[in-house]
Amino acid sequence: MTTYIFGHKNPDTDSICSAIAYADFKEKTGEKDVVAARIGNINNETKFVLEKFKIAPPMLLKDSTGKKMILVDHNQEAQSIDNRDKGEVVEVLDHHNINFASQGTIPFLTESVGATSTIIANMYFDTKTQLDEKIAGILLASIVSDTIIFKSPTTTEKDKITAQKLAKLLGIKDIESFGIEMFKAKSVWGKMTAEDILEMDRKEYDMSGSKVSITQVETVDYKDLVPRKKELLCELSRIKEIRGLDLSVLLITDIIKEGCLLLAVGDTKKIEKAYNKKLTNGEVWLNGVLSRKKQVVPVLEEVF
Amino acid sequence: MTTYIFGHKNPDTDSICSAIAYADFKEKTGEKDVVAARIGNINNETKFVLEKFKIAPPMLLKDSTGKKMILVDHNQEAQSIDNRDKGEVVEVLDHHNINFASQGTIPFLTESVGATSTIIANMYFDTKTQLDEKIAGILLASIVSDTIIFKSPTTTEKDKITAQKLAKLLGIKDIESFGIEMFKAKSVWGKMTAEDILEMDRKEYDMSGSKVSITQVETVDYKDLVPRKKELLCELSRIKEIRGLDLSVLLITDIIKEGCLLLAVGDTKKIEKAYNKKLTNGEVWLNGVLSRKKQVVPVLEEVF
Repeated sequence: MTTYIFGHKNPDTDSICSAIAYADFKEKTGEKDVVAARIGNINNETKFVLEKFKIAPPMLLKDSTGKKMILVDHNQEAQSIDNRDKGEVVEVLDHHNINFASQGTIPFLTESVGATSTIIANMYFDTKTQLDEKIAGILLASIVSDTIIFKSPTTTEKDKITAQKLAKLLGIKDIESFGIEMFKAKSVWGKMTAEDILEMDRKEYDMSGSKVSITQVETVDYKDLVPRKKELLCELSRIKEIRGLDLSVLLITDIIKEGCLLLAVGDTKKIEKAYNKKLTNGEVWLNGVLSRKKQVVPVLEEVF
Repeated sequence: MTTYIFGHKNPDTDSICSAIAYADFKEKTGEKDVVAARIGNINNETKFVLEKFKIAPPMLLKDSTGKKMILVDHNQEAQSIDNRDKGEVVEVLDHHNINFASQGTIPFLTESVGATSTIIANMYFDTKTQLDEKIAGILLASIVSDTIIFKSPTTTEKDKITAQKLAKLLGIKDIESFGIEMFKAKSVWGKMTAEDILEMDRKEYDMSGSKVSITQVETVDYKDLVPRKKELLCELSRIKEIRGLDLSVLLITDIIKEGCLLLAVGDTKKIEKAYNKKLTNGEVWLNGVLSRKKQVVPVLEEVF
């Protein structure tokens, strides 16, 4: 029976590439019938990465009924495949907050590192499993992407060391340039509708009974998106209505200026209270805020 | 700041010994200020094991307020220290069903093996960390105890291989005899009150809103406890009243006959439905049933 390995909804590079790499690792270490999958569309950054390293995108999995599943890069139900309980989760590999219940005993591993790919790369190293260049490439890209070129406060020493080992293996001397090239590929805003942008990496959270949506997009210059502010606020409102949200947020992260422009619609008083700053026309600049997971979600949860 | 490592309430040998061994492993791999602890009394089997390998029992931790904690051999709140949320869980290492939520990202590892000590022993092996004889001894004892000398269906190939490696290191040739000697030490029923017996390894479960308590005791001959049946049923009733239970169960596991005598008070119809067998005077023999985790809890959950 096939086991499907996949990351979270609205998959980012780490979700797609860690699924591909973990399926490869499982196969190389003797497991049969494992398949990398995804439960959403591939974003421009990930497309760039897969094309660069000549890897086909994983299959789209739409239904979990009766399926065996390995979750990578997420564990919470809200971020997983719809009706997950119609299938069976047989393993979890992640680096996020835990909110999980299992019927039986399963292998479940989370580590406090910047990317799921960091954990997987070290499985290859520790077990001396053969690591092909293209797998090393997508693992490096995922670490650089998830840690925002090591600038995010989620970055650990282990992420840096792992990335250096992978870069050496690939003959990449300048990881920073490699990263900026990747983030530029992601920021091709001209071709994208406001809906595309908002759905690139949108996550929903239940905060003490309130529904909050937070999209994060990384840019090499947040000003590229400023002319489209009205359109983005309008889309934030539309999502708020159709998803029944209390608060609908977009974080436009600037990886060079190291901060983010936050746009929000709904109960924005909560944001003002959380950061002790006023929003003007639905926007506020937050200096030094690069991580949704560490600097936005817990801060808002505290206020809600 | 000190980090306390401890296993579940009503600790068994794996809970006590995995806490001691993991504290030793953490120290040997460079972590400072970690202390093995326990949150309940030590049973006779564990006493025997600690005396045999000349290890002092870990300290009793009564209050979690403001403390950093590493959970071994459990993860669920109901089986942990009271008011656990007044402290901070910084890591989890376990081999049970998962029911856990964390605020931040933490190292969390569960594996489908028969004992937490199996996971820890392999950490020593994999990282080539020095493993002292007395730590090897308590790890072996825990594996033999939790897998009921490899007879429990929770036993995996990894448990057996790990135990063999440890036995070799210790010069123990007959693991079976070592195990029976240990279980005999546990079964000194003469000195124990019915309350002592019921509290040796009692766990409470929420089954679809119903409160169920299941104690498991291992014997080398279940008939040793048969003369005390009335007294045990009376104690089961008392626990049912004071804990507000719907069902109060005692499993007297016989590791030689490979089955268990089940005594129960309360909604015993659920047990009859689960195993399709009638209880007579509150008792029924279940052939082949050795594991509470795999053969009793899920079967009852299904019925509730």
